[in-house]
Amino acid sequence: MDVAELGAWLRLSLTPGIGNAGARQLLAAFGSAQAIFEQDASTLRQLGSDRLADALLTEPATLADQLQATLDWLQGADNRRVVTLGDTGYPPALLDIEDPPSMLYMLGALDPWAPAATNNAAPCIAIVGSRNPTPQGESNARQFARVFGEAGLCVVSGLALGVDGAAHDGALLGGGTTMAVVGTGLDRVYPKQHLALAHRIAQRGLIISEFPLGTPPLTANFPKRNRLISGLSQGTLVVEAALKSGSLITARLAAEQGKEVFAIPGSIHSPLSRGCHALIKQGAKLVESAQDVLEELSLPQLSPALTAEADADGHPADDPLFAAMGYEPVSLDALQARTGLATAELQAHLLALEMAGEVARLQGGLFQRMARG
Amino acid sequence: MDVAELGAWLRLSLTPGIGNAGARQLLAAFGSAQAIFEQDASTLRQLGSDRLADALLTEPATLADQLQATLDWLQGADNRRVVTLGDTGYPPALLDIEDPPSMLYMLGALDPWAPAATNNAAPCIAIVGSRNPTPQGESNARQFARVFGEAGLCVVSGLALGVDGAAHDGALLGGGTTMAVVGTGLDRVYPKQHLALAHRIAQRGLIISEFPLGTPPLTANFPKRNRLISGLSQGTLVVEAALKSGSLITARLAAEQGKEVFAIPGSIHSPLSRGCHALIKQGAKLVESAQDVLEELSLPQLSPALTAEADADGHPADDPLFAAMGYEPVSLDALQARTGLATAELQAHLLALEMAGEVARLQGGLFQRMARG
Repeated sequence: MDVAELGAWLRLSLTPGIGNAGARQLLAAFGSAQAIFEQDASTLRQLGSDRLADALLTEPATLADQLQATLDWLQGADNRRVVTLGDTGYPPALLDIEDPPSMLYMLGALDPWAPAATNNAAPCIAIVGSRNPTPQGESNARQFARVFGEAGLCVVSGLALGVDGAAHDGALLGGGTTMAVVGTGLDRVYPKQHLALAHRIAQRGLIISEFPLGTPPLTANFPKRNRLISGLSQGTLVVEAALKSGSLITARLAAEQGKEVFAIPGSIHSPLSRGCHALIKQGAKLVESAQDVLEELSLPQLSPALTAEADADGHPADDPLFAAMGYEPVSLDALQARTGLATAELQAHLLALEMAGEVARLQGGLFQRMARG
Repeated sequence: MDVAELGAWLRLSLTPGIGNAGARQLLAAFGSAQAIFEQDASTLRQLGSDRLADALLTEPATLADQLQATLDWLQGADNRRVVTLGDTGYPPALLDIEDPPSMLYMLGALDPWAPAATNNAAPCIAIVGSRNPTPQGESNARQFARVFGEAGLCVVSGLALGVDGAAHDGALLGGGTTMAVVGTGLDRVYPKQHLALAHRIAQRGLIISEFPLGTPPLTANFPKRNRLISGLSQGTLVVEAALKSGSLITARLAAEQGKEVFAIPGSIHSPLSRGCHALIKQGAKLVESAQDVLEELSLPQLSPALTAEADADGHPADDPLFAAMGYEPVSLDALQARTGLATAELQAHLLALEMAGEVARLQGGLFQRMARG
C-alpha cells in the first residue's frame, strides 16, 4: 500500500459520522478509498446527506499527524501491518459481520490471511470471561486453551486481565497460536500487566486493533471490539462471567453472528457462574471439557489422534492410579484417600508418571492426568 | 375393604409371573381382584398362557401369613392403609405410568387422594440425588425443598441417605408436606439412620411402598420404586448425581413420563455434578434456585415473598479467604498458594469459619465455602 492509499484509508476512518457500515457503502459505490475523495461535492451529496458530503470534503485536522505516526509505526518493526477492507489479506470471517472495520492494525508473526500464508487453515475459538475470575475459573481458561492449542486451534481473546490472559497463555503453552483483539491503538499495551504476555503473543500469534494508533483505553471501545473476537471465531467459550458483563455481550454477538456459544457451569452460589448459567438457559452449550467443544465444532482437519483421545487417552487401563485420578485436577490427599497407597509410594508413582509426561503437576499441589498427544 | 377382598388383592400381588401390567389386564378383563380368582381354568387359559393360568389357580404358600401380617399391620396404628388400583383413593398420577402397582401400602397423616381430602391440590415435585453428596449438595437439597415447602408444594423423594433425606427434612422445615416412596415393606425402615425422619414424615406427610410387608432392602427394588417418585410428581429435580446412578434412572423415567427434569449445575471438576451436567446436555432445565423450578411448573398459588430467596449468600465480601476459596472444593495447599497465609494462620481461620458453618471440611483434606441457608 503506498502512502497516498494509506492516507485515503486513514482519512476515511478519521472522518466523523461515517462508521464502518457507511465506509463499506462508500467503498462499494466508488471502488477504493482514494476514489471516494476524488469525487466532487454534487456526486457525494447525491449519495448521502449534505452533512456527510461536507464531512468527506473536509480533511480531518489530525490526518497528517496520524499518517506520519502510522508510517513511523509500520517501519518500527517487521511484523506490523495495516490491512484494509480492500486487501486480500483482510480476515474473511470479518466480512460476514454487520460492520467490519475498514482498517485493521496488526502486529505479530502470525499472518493467517496473507495470500501466501501457510498457516491459514487454523480454525479460531474465542475464550472470554471475567477480568476477576476465581482461581478455578482462571485455571479452567488456561487448561481449555491449552487443549485447543494442542488440537491446532487458534485461541482468540481480548488481552484483558483474568480469563483473557489465561486463555492466551494457555494457547501458547499448548503450542498453539493465539490472537488478541484489543481496544486501544497498537502502539499501546493495555493493561500494562500484560506487556510481557503481549510480547509472547506477538512472537507466535497476532494482536489486532481497529483503532488508530494513539487510541487510549476508552470504556466504549472494549464492548465494540468484542464483535471482532466473536466474528473471527467459529465459536465462543465463556469461562466465568457475572450476569452483567462484557463476556455476555460477546456471547450475544456470537449468537447473533450465528456462531456456537459454549459455557462452563459452576456452583449456583458463585456470582461468576451466573452469566454462564444464564447463557446455558438461553441455549448455549454446557461444556465440561475442551473435548466437548472440539466435538461440537466442525473441524475436519483435526488429526485422527485427537478424535481417539476423546474415547481413551491410551493410559494403561490396569493402572489403578489413573482410575483414582479421573481426568480432573486432584490433590495428593484425595488420591491417597482414593487409592489407599502410602504417601511415599504414591509420590514415587506420580513422579514417574510426571517424568513420562502422563501426569501434570499443577499449582496448588494438584495433579492431573494428561491426555497422550 | 373386607378381608376377602384384601386377600384377593394380596393373592394377585403374590402370584408369580404376573407383574403390574399383567395384573392391570386381568383386572380390566374380570372387573375385580376377587373375580379373577372366581374364574375356571379354561377361562383363564383363553386369556393367557397355560403357565399363567396355573399360577393363578395355585394359592401362593405365603398368602395366609401375608394376609394376617397385613391385617395386623393395618390395625397397629390409625394412619396405615392399603390402596388398590380399584380404589378411588389411588393416586391418579400413577394411573398414567406404564405399570402402576396394583397395591400401594401407605403410612402417614397425609391422604391427598382420599375422596374427602382437603389437601388434595398440592402439586408434587421430586427431589433426588446422591446418597453421598458434597456438603453443599446436601445443603442445596434442603434449601430447595424448604422453599418448595414454603410455596405449598409436596416434596417427593426416596428416604435414602444424602440428598433424599435432606429433601424430606427441608420440606418439613419449610412447613410443607412430603412423600417418601420406599423400596422395602412399610413395616421396615431403611436406612435405619432415617428412623426419626420417617416418623416426622409420617406425622405430616406420607410414606408409600408397593412392596408387601416384610420385604427387605433388595437392590433390585430401589430403581423400581424410582418410577413412582417421578410418576407422582410434576417434575423431578436432580441435585447431585454421578454419571451412573439411580438418580439418572429417575430422571430418565421422568422424561419418559413426559415430566419436566431439572438439574443443579456445579463444578466441572466434581464427579457428583457429572450426572446433572449430562442431564442438562440432554435437555434438562438448568436451575439455580427453587424459584427457577417454580417458574417452570404451572403453579398459580405461589406467594410473592419467594422471589427474593436465592440472591447472594451474604458472606462478608471483605474476607480475602472467601475470594481465594471460590465455590469449589479446594485443598489447604491451594488455599495457601492463593492467599500467601502461613499454615497455622490459615488453619485457625478455617476452623473458625467451620465452627460458624461458613466452610465445610470435606474428605480428602478439601475445604468448601457454604452458602448461607
